[in-house]
Amino acid sequence: MMLRPSTFRRLVDLQDGRVEMAHGGGGRAMAQLIEELFVANFDNDLLRQGNDQACFPIASGRLAMTTDSFVISPLFFPGGDIGALAVNGTVNDLAMAGAEPLYLTAGFILEEGFPLRDLKRIVQSMARAAKAAGTAIVTGDTKVVERGKGDGVFINTAGLGRVPAGIDIAADRARPGDAVLVSGSIGDHGIAVLSQREGLRFESPVESDSAPLCGLVADMLAVAPDVRVLRDPTRGGLGATLNEIALRSAVGIELREEAIPVSPGVRAACDLLGLDPLYIANEGKLIAICPPETAAALLAAMRAHPLGREAAVIGAARADPHRFVEMETAYGGKRLVDWLAGEQLPRIC
Amino acid sequence: MMLRPSTFRRLVDLQDGRVEMAHGGGGRAMAQLIEELFVANFDNDLLRQGNDQACFPIASGRLAMTTDSFVISPLFFPGGDIGALAVNGTVNDLAMAGAEPLYLTAGFILEEGFPLRDLKRIVQSMARAAKAAGTAIVTGDTKVVERGKGDGVFINTAGLGRVPAGIDIAADRARPGDAVLVSGSIGDHGIAVLSQREGLRFESPVESDSAPLCGLVADMLAVAPDVRVLRDPTRGGLGATLNEIALRSAVGIELREEAIPVSPGVRAACDLLGLDPLYIANEGKLIAICPPETAAALLAAMRAHPLGREAAVIGAARADPHRFVEMETAYGGKRLVDWLAGEQLPRIC
Repeated sequence: MMLRPSTFRRLVDLQDGRVEMAHGGGGRAMAQLIEELFVANFDNDLLRQGNDQACFPIASGRLAMTTDSFVISPLFFPGGDIGALAVNGTVNDLAMAGAEPLYLTAGFILEEGFPLRDLKRIVQSMARAAKAAGTAIVTGDTKVVERGKGDGVFINTAGLGRVPAGIDIAADRARPGDAVLVSGSIGDHGIAVLSQREGLRFESPVESDSAPLCGLVADMLAVAPDVRVLRDPTRGGLGATLNEIALRSAVGIELREEAIPVSPGVRAACDLLGLDPLYIANEGKLIAICPPETAAALLAAMRAHPLGREAAVIGAARADPHRFVEMETAYGGKRLVDWLAGEQLPRIC
Repeated sequence: MMLRPSTFRRLVDLQDGRVEMAHGGGGRAMAQLIEELFVANFDNDLLRQGNDQACFPIASGRLAMTTDSFVISPLFFPGGDIGALAVNGTVNDLAMAGAEPLYLTAGFILEEGFPLRDLKRIVQSMARAAKAAGTAIVTGDTKVVERGKGDGVFINTAGLGRVPAGIDIAADRARPGDAVLVSGSIGDHGIAVLSQREGLRFESPVESDSAPLCGLVADMLAVAPDVRVLRDPTRGGLGATLNEIALRSAVGIELREEAIPVSPGVRAACDLLGLDPLYIANEGKLIAICPPETAAALLAAMRAHPLGREAAVIGAARADPHRFVEMETAYGGKRLVDWLAGEQLPRIC
């Protein structure tokens, strides 16, 4: 460290200190926070160069770029925290284009008074998540707002990824007859966060499914490069995400309720709280839509990956000028899976 | 618009409506806000595709990637607003690597109750700024937090740019003997925001200098491809930024106070308020450091550009194991230009 430690030491106390306005002021306190917290934990050559941007060579090809802000409350929850979520969420948005993550950026909006010890936990969690996804946080930004003008920590991540040659995945590519698959049980993230927020205890505890999907997607594309649509059903859950795909692709989608995996804990919580798992957020699941002849191979590849063990074919796209998402219920009836008009659970990611 | 207007209409009223939690919920209200506000104004093919990421082909070479969050208060100020600032700030972080901006991302954190009319003004301002800088906002994200958990609007932008071949600019490249230049008068942004915030009126009104510096930088690199360091002195101003360069490059820097351009309005405001223009934020100025033999050509190129008309050589780097920034004052004395320990003006960007 080159930062004259004797005079710097007292400006950032990662054990007992709190976020102060000076930590966002562009002076010595901010420089020390960046060095001792962010650079020390994210630890990579590009970040260590200390420029206001990261520069790197790139080979020609197709890139994917994405961004997400994270305002989840509470910041820590069963199965994850805002830090891991902020990395996985952006990695997954890249993966949904078939892209392998290259680099991430991180922008922090901190509320004055937030414990630096908690911020350190979050940053360490981000560093672990980035490593697990095979990527790195190469540049960032820190802002501080006065007490009562924020809510602890908000994090934005942006990501850059590389799309392998020959892959063309987009929300408008579903065609009538295509198979609709999901990579595992739905609703875990939303129920985990809700139960933490409301202090609920269930017999089967539910953990967030927050996870990086880039490895699963790579395995899927290896056997099924003709996958047409990939989407991670986050806010709005499976229901909202399928409606968006139906809208963009100008198709209807027919689901079979019995085929949709829901864990016993999520089912019990939803029954108790009057929630519909179809609209509960997921942070480690994906929807895949592929030509019918590819579905069996794709399903097998998904089930062979730790994050796709419970993968299932849950329905099919069909011609429908109304672009409705419909579901054959467990009782043999049919129900419209509409858009949510509003939101079921606020600040879930 | 494909979004069934009859049922959608009432969910977003851009004239008299306010931000509601549902606008961040992942359902129909959010989809409508994105279509009618963001896609309609940012208006480009990549965004219109409606995927959770933008995909584009790229030629091999060096890229720059950066991010900044903007939490400025007030949101509107003389000479700009948070929207223009969010675009220019990230464009400038790319330009400080010599990079031409390619694509931007935008992440919004909105406070419940914020007037949609004001959000529309901000979004339109971002769209204009992006166009002026020759770039586009190609993907984004919207989150909503409850009243009292945010402060109107926070914006994160991330940017991707292309570094021309042969350009190598970084904060650690200054060498003893190098010339230090600034592109114009300092302190305008900070004083403009402060006066708006505090309701101050000055005889010479001060406007923010918020502007995209990519065009100026391109002209500079055309005559002086050997520029070693570029930095925009935002938070912490010229003083903090030069200290950071001195630290990274392991040099001292000697300034001449008389050579540093300060507008009469900024000087008067600083005298009145007891502020030092050296530490006031700028949003449309840059510091350039180059070999001494290049300085004259570089200065001429800067002065030939509308954003560099008041450019000046303000000092030089020198060997100094202490890495001090010192200034010869107008009275012939010498003073240490130290780091700010804290911050002079909170939430200036």
